[in-house]
This record gives sequence, C-alpha cells and structure tokens, in this order.
Amino acid sequence: MTRPFGKVLIANRGEIAVRVIRTCRELGIATVAVHSAADRDSAAVRLADEHVQIGPAPAKRSYLSIPAIIEAARATGADAIHPGYGFLSEDPDFAEVCQAEGFVFVGAPSTVMARLGDKSTARALMADAGLPLLPGSRDAIDNPDAARALADEIGYPVIIKAVAGGGGRGMRVVRDGDEFATAWQHTRAAAAAVFGDGRLYVERYLESARHVEVQILADTHGTVRHLGLRDCSLQRRHQKLVEESPAPGLSPELAERIAAAAVRGCEAAGYVGAGTVEFLLASDGRFYFMEVNCRLQVEHPVTEMVTGVDLVAEQLRIAAGEPLTLGERVPHGVAIECRLNAEDPERAFAPAPGTLVECALPAGPFVRVDTHVAQGYAIPPHYDSLLAKVIVWAPDRPTAIARMRRALAETTIAGPGVATTTDFLHDILDHPAFRSATHDTALIGALNAPAAVH
Amino acid sequence: MTRPFGKVLIANRGEIAVRVIRTCRELGIATVAVHSAADRDSAAVRLADEHVQIGPAPAKRSYLSIPAIIEAARATGADAIHPGYGFLSEDPDFAEVCQAEGFVFVGAPSTVMARLGDKSTARALMADAGLPLLPGSRDAIDNPDAARALADEIGYPVIIKAVAGGGGRGMRVVRDGDEFATAWQHTRAAAAAVFGDGRLYVERYLESARHVEVQILADTHGTVRHLGLRDCSLQRRHQKLVEESPAPGLSPELAERIAAAAVRGCEAAGYVGAGTVEFLLASDGRFYFMEVNCRLQVEHPVTEMVTGVDLVAEQLRIAAGEPLTLGERVPHGVAIECRLNAEDPERAFAPAPGTLVECALPAGPFVRVDTHVAQGYAIPPHYDSLLAKVIVWAPDRPTAIARMRRALAETTIAGPGVATTTDFLHDILDHPAFRSATHDTALIGALNAPAAVH
Repeated sequence: MTRPFGKVLIANRGEIAVRVIRTCRELGIATVAVHSAADRDSAAVRLADEHVQIGPAPAKRSYLSIPAIIEAARATGADAIHPGYGFLSEDPDFAEVCQAEGFVFVGAPSTVMARLGDKSTARALMADAGLPLLPGSRDAIDNPDAARALADEIGYPVIIKAVAGGGGRGMRVVRDGDEFATAWQHTRAAAAAVFGDGRLYVERYLESARHVEVQILADTHGTVRHLGLRDCSLQRRHQKLVEESPAPGLSPELAERIAAAAVRGCEAAGYVGAGTVEFLLASDGRFYFMEVNCRLQVEHPVTEMVTGVDLVAEQLRIAAGEPLTLGERVPHGVAIECRLNAEDPERAFAPAPGTLVECALPAGPFVRVDTHVAQGYAIPPHYDSLLAKVIVWAPDRPTAIARMRRALAETTIAGPGVATTTDFLHDILDHPAFRSATHDTALIGALNAPAAVH
Repeated sequence: MTRPFGKVLIANRGEIAVRVIRTCRELGIATVAVHSAADRDSAAVRLADEHVQIGPAPAKRSYLSIPAIIEAARATGADAIHPGYGFLSEDPDFAEVCQAEGFVFVGAPSTVMARLGDKSTARALMADAGLPLLPGSRDAIDNPDAARALADEIGYPVIIKAVAGGGGRGMRVVRDGDEFATAWQHTRAAAAAVFGDGRLYVERYLESARHVEVQILADTHGTVRHLGLRDCSLQRRHQKLVEESPAPGLSPELAERIAAAAVRGCEAAGYVGAGTVEFLLASDGRFYFMEVNCRLQVEHPVTEMVTGVDLVAEQLRIAAGEPLTLGERVPHGVAIECRLNAEDPERAFAPAPGTLVECALPAGPFVRVDTHVAQGYAIPPHYDSLLAKVIVWAPDRPTAIARMRRALAETTIAGPGVATTTDFLHDILDHPAFRSATHDTALIGALNAPAAVH
C-alpha cells in the first residue's frame, strides 16, 4: 500500500474525527487532532498521534477558526487537512486558504465547491447537464412579489430555499399562498443570519417523496464513479435519522438511471473527491436533482458496508493525486445506519446533553459502531447531539432490520439529564411502512405529529 | 424469517454465550443464560431474557454439570440447548441426554459426535472415505513397545495423541526414539486424567506445516456444504492465536480439493450441523486429515465476515430441521481474527486475571469485536483466559493486516495483575513470514523460543 501523506490534520471533532484517524493509521499516516477546550479529553485527542488546542468551546472560535487551524497545521508540519463533515468542510474559502498555505485540502476543489454550494448555480449547471429539476426558479429571486407569482404558478406546496443553504438547513415549506410573504421574510432573515447570504429561490415541494442519494468518487484524472444509492427518507425537520444502502424498493434500472445522472452531473461540474448527489424520488418514479454535498456524509458507512470500500482512504488517495483503481462494485447485501442522538423525543427532540453514567453500545456479528463516546463521557453542550452511529449489515433487508433491532436493544445510554433517540429509532424500525420499504419523507412527521416537518 | 425455536438455553459462558444470545434475539428466540456463581454479573446474564444459576464457580459443578443444565432447561421451558464451544459441546452423552429429556441439542448427533470424537474411529472413517492421513497407527495402540516400533518405522519427529483428545489438548511431540517411552507414559497419564480415556495413537509430526480447516454446514436432509477454508497456523502449544479466512497463499485448485475432501468426509460420517474438518498442509502441497471438531469454532467469525453467513443462525435452523438454503458462496475479501487473552507472554503465557480498570476495545470500519468484558469486569480465575476476539475484514490481506494493527493499537486493557497478549499479537502481525503468508505452525515457537511447541 502506498502512503498518500506523511501527516494529516483533522479539522473536526466527535465521531468523524475518530473515523478519519482510524483510516490514517491504517495507511501509516500520522495524525493531528485539533480540539476546543471543551474537547480536551476527547477520543480523537486520545487516538491521534498529536493534538493541538485551537480555541475555546464555541465552534466559531475553534472548529470554525481558519487561522487557528492553519496555524496548528503549520506548527505540526501536516501535509494535508481533512475537514470531516459540517464545520468548514464545505467552505470554499477554507479549501482555498489550505491550498494557498501549502496544505492539501482533502475535499473538492474550492471553485467546484463554490459553484455547487450556491444552489442557484448548481441548479443551472445540473439542468445544463440534463438532470431533471423540480419546477421552480432557476436562479435566485430578489423580489418577493415575483417569487409569490412564481409559487402561484408552480402550485402549492412549494419550498423556499436559501441559495447558500444545504444539508437540511435554510428551507421552509409553504402550503398556501397567504403564508408566502411571511415565510419568505423569515427564511431570508434566517439565511442572512446563518449563512451571511439572504438570497432565496422557490421550487415545488413534493409531499411524499423519497430522499435518495448517490455516493460519488472522482479523481483528479477525470474518472467519476458511483458507489450506489442510499435512501435517507427518514428525516425529522430535514435531519436524517435512519439511512440505508442500497435504496430499497427501486428497480435496478431506476437505480442505475439515478446513479448515471449523478455521475453525469459530477462530470459536468468537474467534481473531484468524495461527494454525494441528492435527489427527490416521487412516487411516480420521477426523480429530481436536489443538491450536491461536497464532503463525506454522516451516513457514508452504509455505502462502505455494502461495497467494502473505505471512503476515507479513497478521499486521501484522490487528494494525493492517485487515480481511482476501484473496479465495478456490485453492492453486497443491505446496510442500515441509525443515528443515536442525545435528544429528547418527548420534548420535540431538544438536545439533552449530560454525563454518560452508563454507556453500553452494541457489538458482535455484522455490527459497526462509529462513536467518540464511552462511559463517563460528558457531552459538551456546544456541538451537535450525535452520540454514535450504529450500522448493521445483512444479506437481506429483513435480516438487517432484525439485526438493528437487536443492536439497539443492547444499547444503554443513561445519565442525569441525558435522553436519547434509541426508543424512537425502535419505533421507526417497527413501522409497517419502513418494514415494507414504502415509507417516504413524511413518515417521521406522522410518527411524531406535534413536530411535523414545517 | 422463520423462528426455529421459541426459547433456547445457552449452556456456556463468556463471549460465546453473548454471541449465541445475539443471533437468538435477531431470530426472535427467547434466551436462557445459565451461569456459575462466579458469572453472576456477566454480560450473558445481562443480555439474556432469563438466567439461572446452576452451581458454584468450578466448571465441573456448573458448566459441566449435565443434571444442573437439564434442570435449568426444564424449569425455564427451553426448547433447545446450544452448547457453544468447549465445556459440554463435544460430549456425546450430553447430546444424548438433551434429546432423551426432550430438548433439541444444537449440534451434531450424539452417535456422529462419538464416532468423530474418537480419533481412532475418525481416522478409520476418513481413510475409508479416501481422505489422506499422515503415516501412523490407524487404531489406538495399547502396547508401548509396539508404539515405539511404529514410531521408529515412521521416522521422527512423531506426535503421540490421545484418542479422546482434540482442540490441541492431549498430544505430545517426540523428536527422538530415546524420549519415546517417557513421553508415552506422560501422555497416557494425562489423557486418562483429563479425558478419562488413556488410549493413544502415533502419527508422523510435520515440523513446518500449515493448519488449515474447512467450515462445514450439513442439514438433516443430507446436504453438506463448505464455507471455505481458514488458516490457523499461528498456534502456541496447539492453542490458536491468530486465524484468517480464506487460507492465504493457496491456489484456488488446492483450496477446492481440501474443501471437497472435507465435504466428502462429512458425508461419509453422516454429519449434521456446523463442524470443522482440520487438515495439516505440508510445504509440498500435500494435505492430511487431522480431526473433525463437532461444534462451532472460536474462530468462526472470520468465515462469517468473508461469506456474510451467520453460522449460529444456520446451526439453529439446521437443529430445527430446516434444509440449508445457502447458495454457492464466493468468499469476499479477507478476514483475520486475533484472540486477546489475559495471559502474560513474559511469563510463558501464564493466565493473568484481575479486574479491568481500563478496557478500551477497538471499533469502527470493518472491525468486529466479540467479547463479554468491559471496564470494571473482574476476570474469574476459573475459566479460560479469552477476553475478546478482534476480527477485521478488508478487500485484501495487506489492508486486513494494517486494519488489525490499527485495531490492536486502539486496544487498552489494564488492571492490577492483568496482562494480555496484545503486544505479542502485534509482533506476529509484523513478522515477515506472516506478512508474506509463508508462515507455518513453527512461527510462534520461533517468536517465543523459551515456550516452543513441546
């Protein structure tokens, strides 16, 4: 095996920092964990070869601080920077600064990221590449009245989306023309505050669609490959809770058409790295481009388990300029991931951090757990509430569901103030619509009516 | 999925009891853990639906007490009894009593087990089925002088084996005719004491052979299938430390010939259940039947990881009379298992039990851990020293080795008096002979000279 880099700095925290460190170690790459003051005793810090404290607990002053991260990379002599997901992973400026300062950014090129991160240019690019889009505005709309007129023309429900949004943030569904003006105003204000970019666009909202996505790997030599589909329809307020691969209930022909569209789109975009093209799949079998995520996804392990490919290793090899050597991959069996979050389903999924007095996680045959937590861990209240990802593999979907039920039944996470989504995940797994793979993005709203998708 | 039984009692302890409970739960089968007083707070007791204390710490009065186990099965209304490995798993009497008392024994039929458990009748049966045997006595030898004469004829080194032995116990290598009489006497005395059967036989001892074995599944309808080979050449005093599947460095033709011989032998024996046929593979490519293990092996997970088959689920289905439905299985990638034992390599691998003040086990991509221990666990001194099995999968062998090194590097097990084989396993993984798959059963003796195979 070649060693793509001598030393990699991981500009992230939590389970994904641990995940990246593991692959680096397998490839013989030294690792640097950067951490906030709140993560001083984290698993990533313990597992990395070196660690650097880059700031206080608030992410703005640590995990989102480009100067602090660059300084840590310089001080430790890192060759490359892996951004994980979230934080700076899709920030074109960060990618650009990394390169300018002489560090390889393990991700898509800054220019590609900028083009695809802007939902307006991304839509235009994909439309030109022949990918189907939902009816809506091709570009950002400035005038609320023009937007309202377009919404009336498309027909309700519509969804207002921030041009700079993505990953489930910066969007609002409008079911009635009378609500449009207020919704527009709120979304614009929120987008301006969160993304520093208040531009919006409108498209048709599909009430009962499936969320399917294609894992892409693209090298610097122009080769773009897909590693099959994932279904991530089980979302609460656009946050995924359960994911699986392959997408169930699709004919091989439809899956192949969706995958081919994703490859075509990434070729058109000049994509490089690991990325995900997200689609909405309507009940009539039509599918529509949603967005490209220019990073590793939280749910990447389900693809790893059905393909046998280590996606982080591929990211690192691509970043080092190596050509993709993956042959044709036939997905093998079914993998499902459940996200265990420190959230209280009884209290509208409010974050419920605390110290884990008990922490028993599942193990054994065909079960993978990606986590940074263990007994005694104090969940910092500053970051997201993901505690662990439980992933199972089985030769078929009913066995995979039974295995996931077993894995969740072995799970005990408890402590003062701590609540988790474990029981809620059990309810999802037991739902007839999920078991028959006839579920769509509306299922969790139905399970959890007071907190329906808004 | 069908549910082969309503309730299964697991007549074992430690990681294998946990392993069996996990599959039962996935199949919707209720479980009964039986335990000694020393295992009152064990993981199996915690995970099972019911638990019954069957006696004090010494195994003779608990895990080896047939009446206590039958009584627990009766009291809890179990339909079937899974014996795990070790303890009563290969005791034909136990299998017979289970059946007589109305419980399905999840294992080979008592008569088949008796025939294959006696090394003398097993050799005769396999010779008749056309399997190659090492030169030696076909039957047990009573007269030490006759045995010595045969050894002289075969040529040294020879190995003296107990007819009732197996699994690495009850055998002694003799390198010189002058040592023969003493070795014979010691082995006979040990066999009589341990197995209650002092009968011995002699065969040629291959100095630098590979230990390869074939995983068999056979149903009650006459179908016998193999699930490929494992290599278990890395042994210390005939106890396996590292196992892998497929067996590396064998041509597909040779592997297929060995697997076919195993299937033929099991067909001849009327075998039913999961079983393993062990062979010695000489450096010239010739292979010789050693023994059949009529049970699940400790190392079964490596086969599970390359085939995707849950062997415990298959055992239960077979025991319920279901026909095998496995199609042709092409092994996928490479799996390696390392046994983490509470033993001190610096002190001739003496058991080193104690309380685990620290216990960090590996996790993440393509890593499986089968264990019953966790932080705070007090290792009872009464049983074997296996703490955990770490199993990794990868598409190729170098990646699997790198992954195992990563997994072991994440492992911290410590406590007063506790020593483990972790560092020793690292040395094995780094050995050029292992890395190039040119190792044989002599490697560990060479690594650990003072405790060479005797």
